[in-house]
Amino acid sequence: MPILNKDMTLCISLAARPSNIGTRFHNYLYDELGLNFVYKAFTTDDIEGAIRGVRALGIRGCSVSMPFKEAVIPLVDEMEESASAIESVNTIVNDDGRLTASNTDYEAVAALIATHELDNAASVAIRGSGGMAKAVVAAFRGAGFDDVTVIARNEMAGAALAEKYGYTHVTGDPEPGTSVLVNVTPLGMRGADEDALSFDDAQVDAAEVVFDVVAFPAETPLIRVGREMDKRVITGAEVIALQAARQFERYTGVAITPEQVARASEFSRDVPPGP
Amino acid sequence: MPILNKDMTLCISLAARPSNIGTRFHNYLYDELGLNFVYKAFTTDDIEGAIRGVRALGIRGCSVSMPFKEAVIPLVDEMEESASAIESVNTIVNDDGRLTASNTDYEAVAALIATHELDNAASVAIRGSGGMAKAVVAAFRGAGFDDVTVIARNEMAGAALAEKYGYTHVTGDPEPGTSVLVNVTPLGMRGADEDALSFDDAQVDAAEVVFDVVAFPAETPLIRVGREMDKRVITGAEVIALQAARQFERYTGVAITPEQVARASEFSRDVPPGP
Repeated sequence: MPILNKDMTLCISLAARPSNIGTRFHNYLYDELGLNFVYKAFTTDDIEGAIRGVRALGIRGCSVSMPFKEAVIPLVDEMEESASAIESVNTIVNDDGRLTASNTDYEAVAALIATHELDNAASVAIRGSGGMAKAVVAAFRGAGFDDVTVIARNEMAGAALAEKYGYTHVTGDPEPGTSVLVNVTPLGMRGADEDALSFDDAQVDAAEVVFDVVAFPAETPLIRVGREMDKRVITGAEVIALQAARQFERYTGVAITPEQVARASEFSRDVPPGP
Repeated sequence: MPILNKDMTLCISLAARPSNIGTRFHNYLYDELGLNFVYKAFTTDDIEGAIRGVRALGIRGCSVSMPFKEAVIPLVDEMEESASAIESVNTIVNDDGRLTASNTDYEAVAALIATHELDNAASVAIRGSGGMAKAVVAAFRGAGFDDVTVIARNEMAGAALAEKYGYTHVTGDPEPGTSVLVNVTPLGMRGADEDALSFDDAQVDAAEVVFDVVAFPAETPLIRVGREMDKRVITGAEVIALQAARQFERYTGVAITPEQVARASEFSRDVPPGP
């Protein structure tokens, strides 16, 4: 029997290439918690019209993915620090027509740095210079890390990102003996680069922690090597689940437990993401 | 378990005061037919923004109720005859960003005139001059009825409506012996006027057909009196189900049987409409 009714609160996502993850994650928890909400992924070729629709239709929450994370900035009414600090939005909350933007990727990475008890005196190498790398670098800065190197082939983007946070930039490999290795590139992601290792065996062997932001597959080559070498690992699956949990709490006002996040995350990963 | 997925096609309704009927009707049939669609009612205080959102989010279908039936006319790309003839829209179909408007209320009334085999030589009295009355009067004209009287206390609206279709207008009662009595006012509708009879017993007794466009309750005072007097009756429940069926077919491209319409209609009426 259909479950929908007119009074359900709608939350959506906007992405160039929507995946099924958010739709399954949020609806799973709505169902488990008995909330009168419904969630669905959308794409658009008119981001301004889409946000206007969010306001006009009273859509409660809007998750924002590539390539709209910067484009929505002038379309909202307020930016929280998590979004304004990195000029990147992944979450919009609609309070009776007033749109507040935040970035739960930043919040999720910051939370994982804390819960995995990374030592902010450690040396860190972060590979990547795209939108998500901004969130990761800013989170390490926010956690008080001083010895961070941004590794990016894109000299302009890498240097700009490193400089913004007082870090150094290199184009090649991390310093030998770097303690925390972080991948924020598509290396190891399902698809063309799925066999690529973002840090080589020797680099992983010399490190204490490997942190791969790639969420699909749940076990990337980097995570697999890290586990084989008994390193502490932080996975992209943790990032994506935690950022979705923070969105969920913002949209619904309901706090969820780590066990609920884990169940919803497992459910959401039961099917492969979109192309 | 949640049923939603990212690829579902969304259809919506826009009304000042949404009811649950459309949401239940459409979702019931999506479920029965295994269609990857989902439907939900919305309200808005920005109809232009809402229609912009329909385009930007790729919302496939949009049912339009009071008070937006005329306001959406300049916002669509094409008007079908059913809508342009009466300058009133209740259905918008989005074909890859091109919006086509129609009026399935008109179509439903026209279809009921045909299936109930009303004789277009008969005398007809139509009480009402609002938006829905326009659809009803136009449908009788379209079916070739010549002897039609529009009864409306609002002289301006009643006269204008009658004149537009070459009919006569009166403010009071139908001619004695009028054969087809049609109510398109709120008389008999659940609420303040639920006990009101739009035509009196003597008028019903002299008629052959009573047609009440009021859909809630399913048996209005007029329908009850008509049945007691063994008249042929056409109910607002038939109108609302048939117009929704026409919307359903436009949105999904799937034809549905009268039995399916009846089941969905019954399911949709299981709960009272919104306030």
